Amino acid sequence: MAGEYILYSMESSGNCYKPRLLLHQLEIPFRLVETDTRTGITRQAQYLALNPAGRVPLLVLPDGRRLSESNAMLLYLGENTRYLPADKYERAVCWQWLFFEQYDHEPYIAVARSWLRIYPDRMGKATPDQIAAWQEKGHRALKVMETRLRESPFLAGSSYSVADMALYAYTHVAHEGDFDLAPYPAIRDWLARVAAQPGHVPMTWRP
Amino acid sequence: MAGEYILYSMESSGNCYKPRLLLHQLEIPFRLVETDTRTGITRQAQYLALNPAGRVPLLVLPDGRRLSESNAMLLYLGENTRYLPADKYERAVCWQWLFFEQYDHEPYIAVARSWLRIYPDRMGKATPDQIAAWQEKGHRALKVMETRLRESPFLAGSSYSVADMALYAYTHVAHEGDFDLAPYPAIRDWLARVAAQPGHVPMTWRP
Repeated sequence: MAGEYILYSMESSGNCYKPRLLLHQLEIPFRLVETDTRTGITRQAQYLALNPAGRVPLLVLPDGRRLSESNAMLLYLGENTRYLPADKYERAVCWQWLFFEQYDHEPYIAVARSWLRIYPDRMGKATPDQIAAWQEKGHRALKVMETRLRESPFLAGSSYSVADMALYAYTHVAHEGDFDLAPYPAIRDWLARVAAQPGHVPMTWRP
Repeated sequence: MAGEYILYSMESSGNCYKPRLLLHQLEIPFRLVETDTRTGITRQAQYLALNPAGRVPLLVLPDGRRLSESNAMLLYLGENTRYLPADKYERAVCWQWLFFEQYDHEPYIAVARSWLRIYPDRMGKATPDQIAAWQEKGHRALKVMETRLRESPFLAGSSYSVADMALYAYTHVAHEGDFDLAPYPAIRDWLARVAAQPGHVPMTWRP
């Protein structure tokens, strides 16, 4: 069907949840194609023809062109909407948090969750050294967020933006990677503010 | 001095080189503050007051506000210039490559170079397992770039953009992390195209 967004997604993935959440909040209709990467389907020729990187999420635009990278999707869909700040500096702060998410947060908080809860069979048993490294670096990222959220209701500034969607995705399920959010009251308050936004939809996967 | 951009930078860092390159290509005057992170200066109170993350690069805007994350700087400085595509989809492809750079490229290609050439004293001796992992994942990223650059002169499409700046930074010194670019003719041609752009300035640090 022409004229339709298609999101190739996996239910347990926070990266896939990000564009799904934004599409809902923008009330953009889309077709969700649930793709369990554990079955190897994303490594098969039919999928690789769509996305040579063999990853989800993948967003197919109404004209058939494709986009990968969850945070690039947030920027593409969010541009000129209330979810990307109109002020240039706040927009830059938003970008800053999106890169922080992929470099300093996801590789520890999401990866710990993948190993410990989603793919324990495929990944093998995490070593104590791996777990200690995830904990150290993940908590470092959480402290950076806590500091910011003590001074600002949302990450980019006064308004809820795609930066909050990007960081909410894996922070609100951080306990599934054995991260305790008790020491982070500002983060916990912010999680509740994000979940209370109009059009919010939850992640549905549970371990 | 009000009205001046200040870039806190370290000469050997590709992440610091990115905004320096763009500032030059945009002919924006700026003050460069060379900051050797090996001396611990970025962990001292004076610097932490500027950037609590204790990292370079840090861009201080003419009005005194600060921005971290090299790729956020590229987007901030590049917006509404010829270095960020005017077409929305090409712009999204540009974002896609910026996130790819931070997630799939920098953590292997830049990190190998840091351990092997820049900080061998501080990092300790890299283990064969670490080196093998950097090689495997770094070459995976280089293959993705090679595939793209066989079909397109620049990463985002027909024009040189901030995506090329971001990926050029660590790709053109990949040999310093023991990555051999011989198998990637399209990447090597692209490196030459990037270096031939008007206003290009080289990285000056050499191991």
